[in-house]
Amino acid sequence: MKQILAEILTIGDEILYGQITDTNSQWISSELDQLGIRVVRKTTVGDTEEAILNAFTEAEARADMVLITGGLGPTNDDLTMPMLARHFNSEIIMNDDVLAHVKDFFERRGRTFTELNRRQALVPAIAEVLHNEMGTAPGTWYERDGKVFVSMPGVPHEMKNLMKTLVLPKLANFFQTPVIYHKLIKTVGIGESFLADKIKDWEDNLPDHISLAYLPSVGQVKLRLTAVGENREELKKDVQDLIDALIPLAGKYIYGYDSTTLEEAVGQLLKAQNKTIALAESCSGGYVQHKITTIAGSSEYFQGGVVPYHNRHKINILGVKPETLEEHGAVSEPCVQEMAEGVRKLFKADIGASSSGIAGPGGGTDEKPVGTVWIAFADGKETITKKLQLTQNRLLNIELTQIAVLNLVRKSLTR
Amino acid sequence: MKQILAEILTIGDEILYGQITDTNSQWISSELDQLGIRVVRKTTVGDTEEAILNAFTEAEARADMVLITGGLGPTNDDLTMPMLARHFNSEIIMNDDVLAHVKDFFERRGRTFTELNRRQALVPAIAEVLHNEMGTAPGTWYERDGKVFVSMPGVPHEMKNLMKTLVLPKLANFFQTPVIYHKLIKTVGIGESFLADKIKDWEDNLPDHISLAYLPSVGQVKLRLTAVGENREELKKDVQDLIDALIPLAGKYIYGYDSTTLEEAVGQLLKAQNKTIALAESCSGGYVQHKITTIAGSSEYFQGGVVPYHNRHKINILGVKPETLEEHGAVSEPCVQEMAEGVRKLFKADIGASSSGIAGPGGGTDEKPVGTVWIAFADGKETITKKLQLTQNRLLNIELTQIAVLNLVRKSLTR
Repeated sequence: MKQILAEILTIGDEILYGQITDTNSQWISSELDQLGIRVVRKTTVGDTEEAILNAFTEAEARADMVLITGGLGPTNDDLTMPMLARHFNSEIIMNDDVLAHVKDFFERRGRTFTELNRRQALVPAIAEVLHNEMGTAPGTWYERDGKVFVSMPGVPHEMKNLMKTLVLPKLANFFQTPVIYHKLIKTVGIGESFLADKIKDWEDNLPDHISLAYLPSVGQVKLRLTAVGENREELKKDVQDLIDALIPLAGKYIYGYDSTTLEEAVGQLLKAQNKTIALAESCSGGYVQHKITTIAGSSEYFQGGVVPYHNRHKINILGVKPETLEEHGAVSEPCVQEMAEGVRKLFKADIGASSSGIAGPGGGTDEKPVGTVWIAFADGKETITKKLQLTQNRLLNIELTQIAVLNLVRKSLTR
Repeated sequence: MKQILAEILTIGDEILYGQITDTNSQWISSELDQLGIRVVRKTTVGDTEEAILNAFTEAEARADMVLITGGLGPTNDDLTMPMLARHFNSEIIMNDDVLAHVKDFFERRGRTFTELNRRQALVPAIAEVLHNEMGTAPGTWYERDGKVFVSMPGVPHEMKNLMKTLVLPKLANFFQTPVIYHKLIKTVGIGESFLADKIKDWEDNLPDHISLAYLPSVGQVKLRLTAVGENREELKKDVQDLIDALIPLAGKYIYGYDSTTLEEAVGQLLKAQNKTIALAESCSGGYVQHKITTIAGSSEYFQGGVVPYHNRHKINILGVKPETLEEHGAVSEPCVQEMAEGVRKLFKADIGASSSGIAGPGGGTDEKPVGTVWIAFADGKETITKKLQLTQNRLLNIELTQIAVLNLVRKSLTR
């Protein structure tokens, strides 16, 4: 089966100079992916004739389709249309349908139609016009030697509407596309290389039509399985069989799939078990609570929490014993135990969780260097603690502590 | 003066497939822009040998420098190092310094160093190693015929640290870039177009060698002044004169300059006035406290806070009157007043600040639709409140509330 290849070309100085974020190309990628079209390259070039023409020629040589966004305004620095005309040896003509639409578009909004606006209706004669109902710059479609070029406006909502209503159906029809099925497996609490060691045999025995990628981020590793074939349901089953075989090897690190986040996974566990939670965060400074409350509906299981940034608040608000702090200090196992138990009682929650550590850059000692963190989980029956030895970087320590606290809750709820 | 040209190359299937957003290339663009280096192309290719090698060759032909991110993990789908070795006809060798660093990195975290981890220390013999103190994948630097290649890890905080501490200074030195002086003026509490109106005359009279850019982000607008010349001290003085003229026009919106964040500016005010603060956050769910505690040394002025996510905790922990909640509801002026005053007393802080609102997507009513938020500031003498009418988007509402609370504290402290 022939794999259909695509390139995405973004045109505009403002993206090269870092003045705006290109969110279009990620969106286009993921839409093409759903169609089983493989994006092999993304390119951004500026508003110069040579750069644009070279990009057209190179992309046409490599891919079956080239999807272009940007450079369609009516001013002189917008070069996409004239360069497409040159690339396809076509003259530029005034398209009456587009002209009528642009005039109408301005009239409806009570804006004056100027000579400059007429230029939006100039398109290469060879192009098939794709009607842009949300704006004035038309989409255009080109075919040559079994390959396709599509030009679309850079304004995200205009481009997305054109893609969904016209471009994607036309592409699926033009190229008889294979099916690609992806599954993301999300893990926490294990590094990339350790995970790779654990699942080596499983990975070595993947069938030919399924590939694996490791996608690490701070404190987490995602595994991506990609299956290529003809039948989506069969691919889905093949991937599920592989996941079933993976679970005995690494199941305890897997918290979810696809777009599920760790805070969402913990929320789903709490909801399913009909339990509520409260947090006592010292070194993580409220970040765990923030993560939990980004999830819509978290008020069902999140009672609240305290950030006792100084010892006397640990004592007065959470009931940590003064002698615990005197004997062991705030960054200690007994302290996080009492914090987790105390916040659980204060908020009348089923579960209490806590953190106390030295985020840095100051405050480290020989015995407890920067990056030393204790965390705890309490459910009224038992209290589980864990010591972390993190980094020299304050923000990273806060991020890693937040992940570790959520993961401790997750693991404790799935024992 | 010769214009120095750069290309940015991102390596990774996960970006081509649209599964992760490439934020690195925009950041790199804007850093290069500030050095006066012109980015002429951005390219993303996948994890295949041919695509990577072709991208190297093409970029080297067009630009003076090629900045590469990604593809540096220890697994088999990470190809950047071997392809760089092939491109520069160099063999791959084990670098003892990198190996020692990787071993140390694992040991410090109490993790086992495996055979796979050793591969992180394999670098092309021709490369100059750029020490990555934040991770295990080293940066590498290559020179050939007056051109430079730099390879960096794809993990954003590792890449940014390498760029700032090593890559940008080396590039400025290697290419003898002209003197460019930037100043960021940071504003909050006013929209881009309103700010532009207020400072129009000032902007119209900028001298030729100084340009202005508006850089809007969520809830804030940055103004960037860029001066180009030959003498840094002169440029600095010219820019300072312009800022002195700007302050009478827009000074009350300006909270800081350059890398100063709003939470840092508020921290500096508290420190200068020798005051402490405590937070009671309902709809912002701990996010203000998280922002405050990202700043090193915040324990000097941050006492702590409470997230009372349900009404009974507002009553029991913060002392909000039950009749206040019955009569006005939790999202009301009297409620945030009592929350701010209550948390101030609970933590024996000089200042209390609070938030209560409907973050959404659920919970809205005709009278109090999603996006209705009340915030308050209390210092024992008076309590200042503010009502916000925000958006339909939960995450945006949390972000905008956090900014508004910090800005309310800032404004109250600078009355």
